Amino acid sequence: MGIGEGVPLLLSFAWLLLAFHAGSISAGRSTYIVHMDKTFMPKAFARHDLWYSSIVDSIHQVGPTSSNSPHSKPEIVYTYDNAFHGFSVVLSQDELDAVKKSPGFVSAYSDRSVTVDTTHTTDFLSLNPFTGLWPASEYGKDVIVGVIDSGVWPESLSFRDHGMTEIPLKWKGTCEVGREFNSSLCNLKLIGARYFNKGVIAAHPNITLSMNSARDTFGHGTHTSSTAAGNYVEGASFFGYASGMARGVAPRARVAMYKVLWDEGRYASDVLAGMDQAVADGVNVISISMGFDDVPLYEDPIAIASFGAMEKGVLVSSSAGNEGPDLGRLHNGIPWVLTVAAGRIDRWFAGTLTLGNGLTITGWTMFPARAVVADVKLVYNKTISACNSTQLLTGAPNGIIICDNTWPFEEQISNIATLSNFVAGIFVSDDPLLFVSNSFSYPGVVVSSKNAQAVINYTLTGGVEPTASIKFQQTFVGTKPAPAVDLYTSRGPAPSYPGILKPDVMAPGTLVLAAWIPNGYASKIGSNIVLASDFNAISGTSMACPHASGIAALLKGAHPEWSPAAIRSAMMTTANPFDNTQNLIKDIGQNFEIATPLAMGAGQVDPNRALDPGLIYDATPQDYVNLLCSMNFTRNQILTITRSNSYPCSNPSPDLNYPSFIALYSNKTAGVLVQKFQRTVTNVGDGATTYKVEVEAPKGTVVTVSQDTLVFGQKYEKQSYSLTINYSGDNNGTVTFGFIVWAEVNGNHTVRSPIVVSPVVAVW
Amino acid sequence: MGIGEGVPLLLSFAWLLLAFHAGSISAGRSTYIVHMDKTFMPKAFARHDLWYSSIVDSIHQVGPTSSNSPHSKPEIVYTYDNAFHGFSVVLSQDELDAVKKSPGFVSAYSDRSVTVDTTHTTDFLSLNPFTGLWPASEYGKDVIVGVIDSGVWPESLSFRDHGMTEIPLKWKGTCEVGREFNSSLCNLKLIGARYFNKGVIAAHPNITLSMNSARDTFGHGTHTSSTAAGNYVEGASFFGYASGMARGVAPRARVAMYKVLWDEGRYASDVLAGMDQAVADGVNVISISMGFDDVPLYEDPIAIASFGAMEKGVLVSSSAGNEGPDLGRLHNGIPWVLTVAAGRIDRWFAGTLTLGNGLTITGWTMFPARAVVADVKLVYNKTISACNSTQLLTGAPNGIIICDNTWPFEEQISNIATLSNFVAGIFVSDDPLLFVSNSFSYPGVVVSSKNAQAVINYTLTGGVEPTASIKFQQTFVGTKPAPAVDLYTSRGPAPSYPGILKPDVMAPGTLVLAAWIPNGYASKIGSNIVLASDFNAISGTSMACPHASGIAALLKGAHPEWSPAAIRSAMMTTANPFDNTQNLIKDIGQNFEIATPLAMGAGQVDPNRALDPGLIYDATPQDYVNLLCSMNFTRNQILTITRSNSYPCSNPSPDLNYPSFIALYSNKTAGVLVQKFQRTVTNVGDGATTYKVEVEAPKGTVVTVSQDTLVFGQKYEKQSYSLTINYSGDNNGTVTFGFIVWAEVNGNHTVRSPIVVSPVVAVW
Repeated sequence: MGIGEGVPLLLSFAWLLLAFHAGSISAGRSTYIVHMDKTFMPKAFARHDLWYSSIVDSIHQVGPTSSNSPHSKPEIVYTYDNAFHGFSVVLSQDELDAVKKSPGFVSAYSDRSVTVDTTHTTDFLSLNPFTGLWPASEYGKDVIVGVIDSGVWPESLSFRDHGMTEIPLKWKGTCEVGREFNSSLCNLKLIGARYFNKGVIAAHPNITLSMNSARDTFGHGTHTSSTAAGNYVEGASFFGYASGMARGVAPRARVAMYKVLWDEGRYASDVLAGMDQAVADGVNVISISMGFDDVPLYEDPIAIASFGAMEKGVLVSSSAGNEGPDLGRLHNGIPWVLTVAAGRIDRWFAGTLTLGNGLTITGWTMFPARAVVADVKLVYNKTISACNSTQLLTGAPNGIIICDNTWPFEEQISNIATLSNFVAGIFVSDDPLLFVSNSFSYPGVVVSSKNAQAVINYTLTGGVEPTASIKFQQTFVGTKPAPAVDLYTSRGPAPSYPGILKPDVMAPGTLVLAAWIPNGYASKIGSNIVLASDFNAISGTSMACPHASGIAALLKGAHPEWSPAAIRSAMMTTANPFDNTQNLIKDIGQNFEIATPLAMGAGQVDPNRALDPGLIYDATPQDYVNLLCSMNFTRNQILTITRSNSYPCSNPSPDLNYPSFIALYSNKTAGVLVQKFQRTVTNVGDGATTYKVEVEAPKGTVVTVSQDTLVFGQKYEKQSYSLTINYSGDNNGTVTFGFIVWAEVNGNHTVRSPIVVSPVVAVW
Repeated sequence: MGIGEGVPLLLSFAWLLLAFHAGSISAGRSTYIVHMDKTFMPKAFARHDLWYSSIVDSIHQVGPTSSNSPHSKPEIVYTYDNAFHGFSVVLSQDELDAVKKSPGFVSAYSDRSVTVDTTHTTDFLSLNPFTGLWPASEYGKDVIVGVIDSGVWPESLSFRDHGMTEIPLKWKGTCEVGREFNSSLCNLKLIGARYFNKGVIAAHPNITLSMNSARDTFGHGTHTSSTAAGNYVEGASFFGYASGMARGVAPRARVAMYKVLWDEGRYASDVLAGMDQAVADGVNVISISMGFDDVPLYEDPIAIASFGAMEKGVLVSSSAGNEGPDLGRLHNGIPWVLTVAAGRIDRWFAGTLTLGNGLTITGWTMFPARAVVADVKLVYNKTISACNSTQLLTGAPNGIIICDNTWPFEEQISNIATLSNFVAGIFVSDDPLLFVSNSFSYPGVVVSSKNAQAVINYTLTGGVEPTASIKFQQTFVGTKPAPAVDLYTSRGPAPSYPGILKPDVMAPGTLVLAAWIPNGYASKIGSNIVLASDFNAISGTSMACPHASGIAALLKGAHPEWSPAAIRSAMMTTANPFDNTQNLIKDIGQNFEIATPLAMGAGQVDPNRALDPGLIYDATPQDYVNLLCSMNFTRNQILTITRSNSYPCSNPSPDLNYPSFIALYSNKTAGVLVQKFQRTVTNVGDGATTYKVEVEAPKGTVVTVSQDTLVFGQKYEKQSYSLTINYSGDNNGTVTFGFIVWAEVNGNHTVRSPIVVSPVVAVW
């Protein structure tokens, strides 16, 4: 669902699916992002921006060559110099053609649309002050998380800096002044805030931005940044639900906000500018809860900017998208970033329904107030129980109306809210999507069709006046099974490069409580009463991503020497494939069948285990280049990503030293599919040690490993092995998976990687 | 408005006017309260209850004498032995006649109906930790406040006992077990809880009490008791309004709850039993926010029970009633109790209305949620602006509707809530009653007719699309003028005895924030959504009374030796007749004219000044007896109150050593009314001192004082003076008033008493 399409944000919000659109720019021009090879920069230019200006000047002198071209000088929107080299500029097609002839030109593409994805959660992740990653990293105190998003509400209690120490000396960012945002709003927690509006302005030249500053008018950026690294806040809740102490995953890490999403539009050029600046400012982790759909890696701004970030040791953590449960819809399937899927946690927001006969049923509600529904008459009548006709309902007696699951809940509750005869509703539904949304606009509860039977039986046979009471604002934790893959999370294989298993890991994403803008939409009563809240509970991979970003920040704090690939490897090989019933994690999008790694990667991220993974699958920039060189890309397409000619393309390899394995069959694959992988692991344990292999082969496969044991003489020693998948199963859609585990002999480390056989998907 | 009349409590609640009704008892019998002279008790009886039983047994053996009389033995409901001597019993008329013939019988009357009356306030009263009454009394830590009310919600944070020391040894009460109430619910703060249900059960023999324990199902008792002596609670608010730290007036005093008000009925016999037990248990102050209308003193259970309490040194603080602003409707006008009027404080609950042209208007709202109303179109149209026709309104455009003051607000807001085209309403009104009610069931603001002009002008002439935004949950303090007498507070003269000026003092009573039952009605959205809250902001003299009770408790803590009359005198002679504009306090019920002492007594209670009043007007039980002997009462009517023959009636006096003066004229009074008063003051200052008189004579009077100075040689010395009022004004309704002030020479004490000339009222 696209933001630019005029769909009300309020309604689409629970999904937080935001698409970046190419702008409608007047006079035949539009915004292009131009990648340059800086080694071509003439020595005469002291700075890259002067070079880029001269190029634009020269093409203007050359043109116009066609009658459609405008006569004003093209305007540079941004120059980029950190994550990659280049600039964005508003050009006509003729002017673009001229730019392409400039020496050093690598590639150019239209500014494009992005898709944005959307606290018991730290408890659920077993983070605690006594042992593990929190104390080991000092809660992330020297780590800076750059969040690329919609801005921040700096006055939120989550961004207070009590308990924070001095800002790390490496920090080079600033607190940019803008509308309703002065530099004193930054502090020891929110150490930087910048905004990038040139792309949106270039697309709409005469626009007045309603909030031209890093101040958040959407809520998304305030939510994601406080999820990653918000300070402790007592008494937080979403209208009484999920109440308690809010805190970010890395409560002592620093937040730097880069606002690139605007109410007026969301542009790749702004995203690129924000990521570029974040790297220049010295962030350690970039958290980016959005993604570009339907673009190849060399035209995906996040893929491009994150390559430069990776080179500089900055881990980029991104959201998988909310296009599940169909396979192959995942975005941010970028080999050098962390791609995060979203799960449901062990929490339930309940309306407790008590019938007059004493029977108590735990329903679902998020009605945003402490409604009193006590001993009210139950109303059930087959002729009106679809609750789809206000005309029929108007004639019903006063009381609590019971609505059958023969009509959508959202329409039923909205019908009831407009009538004056119902104190509350009981909605029968088994739709798992209900438990993702925080919207509940009239007092009532959802009960399962199984539980509904008792309610209806009592109502029809319970004597003179069957009654019920409902208690709101109930929060239960410890529900089972949890975690579970949620329906919406986008599934692999990644259309941008299916040969690397994506997503990487799963983190909590459903109804995550975090800070919110205090003047925006948070909930609704009836059809017209919009309510605001300092905290919001919302769902999406946008909410999962900053959990992983926070964990990455903690790992960076505990292991400053680790590369982005090492941090990702630690999170993946220690991820937990089991839920709190000790069974394999289930997939809500597949009727609670066992979840595959295409849905959740290696499993639910386990921060305390990630602190001490034993072995690491590392990767260098050259390793990623070797992968790129194996793709069917032109030299300039590769250079768009890598920027530099200094990376040789002499060892192309479709494989990568990745902590997971995927073999793809097509419907043309007949007989046996054989795929061999090479891997090298680095011992990051304390010293000499030995690991023994355990393999659980995917159904229909034989998995062969080159050796049974890996023997390490010392810390940081590397050992290699190869793994071969022989798949002889069907070729009509089956996904099958298993694991390889390197288990330490006389030690506690287990290093687990998923092995997947999947149908191939269409590549972007 | 009577509770027994089936009027929904929810709607009548803001007024908290509850009437005790005589019960409908089957079989020709009803409940009578019988007063006995215990000196007649035969020595054969070891206990009073055995004597009363024998009387009831004997009349049963005598009767039945008429065919209508029932044949079962009459049942004793309660026996009373502390506040007074006697019993309540269910009798037929014949049986009652037989009881009247028993030796020692004093009087009997039907069980009857009572009228119940309903935190920045401590700040507003200047209570503070650094100086004055709080530190001087150690916050009331050794004082026990007995609250006669609807029970208590013991789990409320206001009744936690953190910071409380051991219970005073004198305490003899208990924590009575009952439905949903076990004895462990009492603690160092809530030291006792009892319930008295025999009266309600006698009136309805087959009733099942819905909550047969001291647990509050109404909220009133939880509110009044936490107002008097609740502990500190951070983060309290009424749906975001009045948010901050809640605390009782005496935050370290103890609470003992005596539940006498039942959902099923409210009976004098239960009230008497509760007060009787409170005295026996050893409370220091009784707080009773209810009163009996239309009864003479000798049939008023509160007058009767409080006489015994007074004799034992227990001050009874009571509410004046909510029957204002007409004169002469006050209840609890009992010479030996403190009678408290209700004022408004310096607080305003605002909806801030900002028009599209930038104009900001501070309206009034208590909409119970943080609604978002931002840049919404204004709708104003003379044909629909009465907002009294949903049919007309349905056709209006979507937006914020402006409703003129041509129809009642309550109907307007309810009409708008049922329609789907309005996001909010702007209600034009100057009705002061709006600012007493906490009900605001749809987003909107009330603006004065003066401010409305700008809104309407802008809407009609403000260009293409005039818009407005409204910000909710705004609380402003420091509004002027404050305090002000509120409209509803009952006015003197007291129909039970107009010769003593009542009320005595004024305390905050309007929209007082205090604890509430968490499962009851606190607010409403639309027509059906009832909301609960842990704190409620409600209005009434019921809320003013516990403020005075808390102050009395603090004074008792600071001056344990003071009699109830001394405590009352200190509160009255130091009360402040001025508001925060340094002008005389105004009366909202009289269009902000200057308030008379018939509305507010001596003025707004000033706890810190009451700590050190300089002089005291004291009174002994015999003084009150002398007053009673001057009334046109029979010996038994007097004995009903005084219980004891040991008080001689040899010095009847219509005057009393009271810290205020009232002269009454009737429409038969012609020419000059002359009334002389005798007063004796006790020096409670530090030692020898001299006071000089200052008189501000009421208009139309000459006031003569017997001397100019009062010279005291030492502490506790008494000096007397007389004051004569010569009134030669009109006799057709004028109330005129002034003051006498004894001002210390070379000292800071000023001892102020109001002087009032008033038309007489019909006596109960």
